[in-house]
Amino acid sequence: MRALVLEAQDQPLVVREVPTPEPGPGQARVRLKAAALNHRDVFILRGQYAAIRHPAILGSDGVGVVESTGPGTVVPVGLRVVVQPSLDWGDDLRFQGSRYRILGMPDDGTFAEAIVLPEGNLVAAPAHLDDASAGALPLAWLTAWRALVTRATLRPGERVLVTGIGGGVAQAALLLATAYGARVWVTSGDDAKIARAVELGACGGARYDQPDWGGRLVREAGGPFDVIVDGAGGEGFGQLVRALGMGGRLAFYGGTDGRWPALLPQFLFFKQVSLLATTMGSPVEFAHMVAFVAEHQLRPVVDRVFPLAEGAAAFARLESGAQFGKVVLDLT
Amino acid sequence: MRALVLEAQDQPLVVREVPTPEPGPGQARVRLKAAALNHRDVFILRGQYAAIRHPAILGSDGVGVVESTGPGTVVPVGLRVVVQPSLDWGDDLRFQGSRYRILGMPDDGTFAEAIVLPEGNLVAAPAHLDDASAGALPLAWLTAWRALVTRATLRPGERVLVTGIGGGVAQAALLLATAYGARVWVTSGDDAKIARAVELGACGGARYDQPDWGGRLVREAGGPFDVIVDGAGGEGFGQLVRALGMGGRLAFYGGTDGRWPALLPQFLFFKQVSLLATTMGSPVEFAHMVAFVAEHQLRPVVDRVFPLAEGAAAFARLESGAQFGKVVLDLT
Repeated sequence: MRALVLEAQDQPLVVREVPTPEPGPGQARVRLKAAALNHRDVFILRGQYAAIRHPAILGSDGVGVVESTGPGTVVPVGLRVVVQPSLDWGDDLRFQGSRYRILGMPDDGTFAEAIVLPEGNLVAAPAHLDDASAGALPLAWLTAWRALVTRATLRPGERVLVTGIGGGVAQAALLLATAYGARVWVTSGDDAKIARAVELGACGGARYDQPDWGGRLVREAGGPFDVIVDGAGGEGFGQLVRALGMGGRLAFYGGTDGRWPALLPQFLFFKQVSLLATTMGSPVEFAHMVAFVAEHQLRPVVDRVFPLAEGAAAFARLESGAQFGKVVLDLT
Repeated sequence: MRALVLEAQDQPLVVREVPTPEPGPGQARVRLKAAALNHRDVFILRGQYAAIRHPAILGSDGVGVVESTGPGTVVPVGLRVVVQPSLDWGDDLRFQGSRYRILGMPDDGTFAEAIVLPEGNLVAAPAHLDDASAGALPLAWLTAWRALVTRATLRPGERVLVTGIGGGVAQAALLLATAYGARVWVTSGDDAKIARAVELGACGGARYDQPDWGGRLVREAGGPFDVIVDGAGGEGFGQLVRALGMGGRLAFYGGTDGRWPALLPQFLFFKQVSLLATTMGSPVEFAHMVAFVAEHQLRPVVDRVFPLAEGAAAFARLESGAQFGKVVLDLT
């Protein structure tokens, strides 16, 4: 089979012929159709990740069709599935165990024509999604689901703020929260992205590079936020904390802007706020997320689809920051 | 009746004869026996609190006996009660409503021979507690209960760290968590207070004025902490965050040491930690706390009891920081 191979750190990704893996007991081989890129893949490419090995096939997302199964495997051949990217989460749903990995490093990932996975990592793909959309679902939507539903315990009618709406997790959070019956505001450094978010259902937004954007959003929303989902951190985190209302929950899954400012606890405890760290999610949350997406006919935003042979161009698109939505590889 | 009256900011508290209040519908008058001081009272004395009025009777804690009731009040005359210090919490148990006040400012508090309260603020006093101990229970133990049980969802067998063990909330957290089946470590600036905490059930402790106290506690405890209760904040908060284990919950109710350091979100989200702001608690939590104290025969630590006439000396004792346990006024 062909795969996009990372042969060494900071080397260009190259398409190589590699052996097609065979499924063992409890495993299945999926003929992949599409897989989205994530920032995690870029961090690995740049050596900014723990325990990197080479050569490696990256990729945590994917959709495809089961084409062969190992002994004792019960998933039917021919089923169209999305890949659940948590491996060995462990027994405690509150947090991952010590053997936990995200698919795509160190285990070979989805940027290939096929992959072998435990059948527990294969979930029937929502029928309303085409391959590009379904292949964009797993990591970003699982992260957004856990942040919003498990961690921030979102309720219908609440006011939600999602930062950095150009990102895949942020867009998933916008669409999930809107379908949940919440009203959602967003931030971006780009007016066009805010306008796109409003088309997707956001009530409004603010440029995070302009003064007092947090206060302006609170005024625009008619009150402080019940739930905030943030992947940026940095100095802006201080505005987020001030924009939280009584009992507000702020779930954070990233920190691309670095350290939070030095926060004064007195500004937090009277409001009974919760600052909730979160990363990706468990298989149980994945199943709930996919069922919710199917029920509400939600659709990941796809920025552009690149053929496998143009994997390097796909990475360049993701790193440019110009995209709105997921950058997807066509693996057919 | 006699009361300890704050006539103006930064004035010495004076014992004055004031009118004995009469209970209205749904209210009862309690002949008070004892009431503990809280740091909140000191903050008010120093003008470091919102919406201070003068003259005022401070005091959020108290125990006494119902001596008269208003029309329609059902609490029996003669019942020995502790005072529940949350007024108008509101309908949402997750956080207080806009009309919420803590007893003792602006409403007249318990540093008096009697008080009139809504009967919903009176809870039968645990029989095993003498007046000084029962009068020390309300604010500190309610704060500790909400921090540990409601906010941090403590489970038996977990490792708990309580900072600043000289304080009333910290001691309540130590005793509650131990009775809950948790193992508890503490911090203090004073070896003698750590030794006292060990007598009360702590597994060990560390001086927060010595290097790497957080790391040393983790090694001593045999692993990172599941739950941390903190009222200090400040630079030491960085050590607390590092001492949190996977899925760890840190409930904070104060910030006497000021701002947290600038935290890097990347050190938090992989661990799925929760930073949980909390302040005092609701009437429902108070009822659960008192029932738990009665069932487990727990006993607030009393440092010293002062007669009402020596109220100023009692405040000086609290402000000295030398005490271990609650400073209590004898109101009989």
